[in-house]
Amino acid sequence: MNQKTYTIGLIRVVSFTNPELIEKHGTHLQQAFPTFRVISKCIPDQPEGIFDYESEARAVPKIVSLGKQLAAEEGVDALIVSCAADPAVAELREELPIPIIGAGSAAASLALAYTSRVGTLGITEATPLAMKKILGPYLVGELKPEGIKTTLDLMKPAGKEKVITAGKKLLAESNSRVLALACTGMSTIGIAQELEEALGIPVIDPVLASGYCAWFYVSRKRNTP
Amino acid sequence: MNQKTYTIGLIRVVSFTNPELIEKHGTHLQQAFPTFRVISKCIPDQPEGIFDYESEARAVPKIVSLGKQLAAEEGVDALIVSCAADPAVAELREELPIPIIGAGSAAASLALAYTSRVGTLGITEATPLAMKKILGPYLVGELKPEGIKTTLDLMKPAGKEKVITAGKKLLAESNSRVLALACTGMSTIGIAQELEEALGIPVIDPVLASGYCAWFYVSRKRNTP
Repeated sequence: MNQKTYTIGLIRVVSFTNPELIEKHGTHLQQAFPTFRVISKCIPDQPEGIFDYESEARAVPKIVSLGKQLAAEEGVDALIVSCAADPAVAELREELPIPIIGAGSAAASLALAYTSRVGTLGITEATPLAMKKILGPYLVGELKPEGIKTTLDLMKPAGKEKVITAGKKLLAESNSRVLALACTGMSTIGIAQELEEALGIPVIDPVLASGYCAWFYVSRKRNTP
Repeated sequence: MNQKTYTIGLIRVVSFTNPELIEKHGTHLQQAFPTFRVISKCIPDQPEGIFDYESEARAVPKIVSLGKQLAAEEGVDALIVSCAADPAVAELREELPIPIIGAGSAAASLALAYTSRVGTLGITEATPLAMKKILGPYLVGELKPEGIKTTLDLMKPAGKEKVITAGKKLLAESNSRVLALACTGMSTIGIAQELEEALGIPVIDPVLASGYCAWFYVSRKRNTP
């Protein structure tokens, strides 16, 4: 791969204070893409993140403002909104001339490059609309783990087990050929690999998917003949 | 990036005899992905490639047979069907347990990770169905260059100019935010970069898009935390 460095802004939609948690998605992407320098920022005053329409609506203006700030101050090559609901992604695309990657559309998009039978596993009652609209008729199953309401619940000791139980149930019910995780809190707990081993089909980590899509848009030109 | 080597089978849907032409897409991908070893094979008896439903139908069983042969003899980690119509992609997915990437769905998928306003530029009268179904309501414009019927016409001296003229017209008519090239013959003539400079919006090369999608599916596990 080429050795140019790309600066990627990454917006966390949950107001963490622990630096390790704040940096987790960014660290993960820097490991996968050594040419990335990821700058992670959290939106203020949403300690439970985004988990329903009201919490999403509250987050949108904060994400727009943070995205514009990252573009102005850090000269980022691309922005990732690290939430499967793609909050503020459409708005930021109107404001900034750089690639704006939403974790939900990135995961859904890469799922469609693999199969026409996609299942989603998230924390909201239904698949986030941004993913649903992209998957269209190819969304063949959706489920949320029982007893999980916010991203914080995923981080509790029983979180992983609940996700794996739900994944098995979804696969049994839906004949999905790939599972797109519909909450980036699942990236925080690093469940994709374990889930993939339990299910035997590819499981798409939405943060990792965002990294691959961002990488496509920032590095593509250098790779075009 | 990790240094493991991946063997990628690449099926050309046009019966070239010139080795440089046969290898062109594969060489391109190996330059973009130094960890790829690409084995390119052409289907027999279709010197004009795929350019309508009849030529596509004729190609499908040949592609299935070639794909199965590549999997059996070369132990490929993934297969790319280098045609924007995704011929035989659904069939091969039922036959083989490896990622089967179609150039059409790869280009369409990566377009959706960037915008909800996608234009396509191909050589058939309408956007290939595989792309159309993935793009759904996000397909906002489509065009074919005048005077181009088969992939061989693209390779003639006036081919590039005709594509650029069509690209400008499409952009003027459609308000597309990204252009997905809907024929891998456009990858053969390497038009994406030039078109992008002429239009000022990202132009997706379908062979390159296939490489990024294949790379996601083969390398993803090593990058999952």
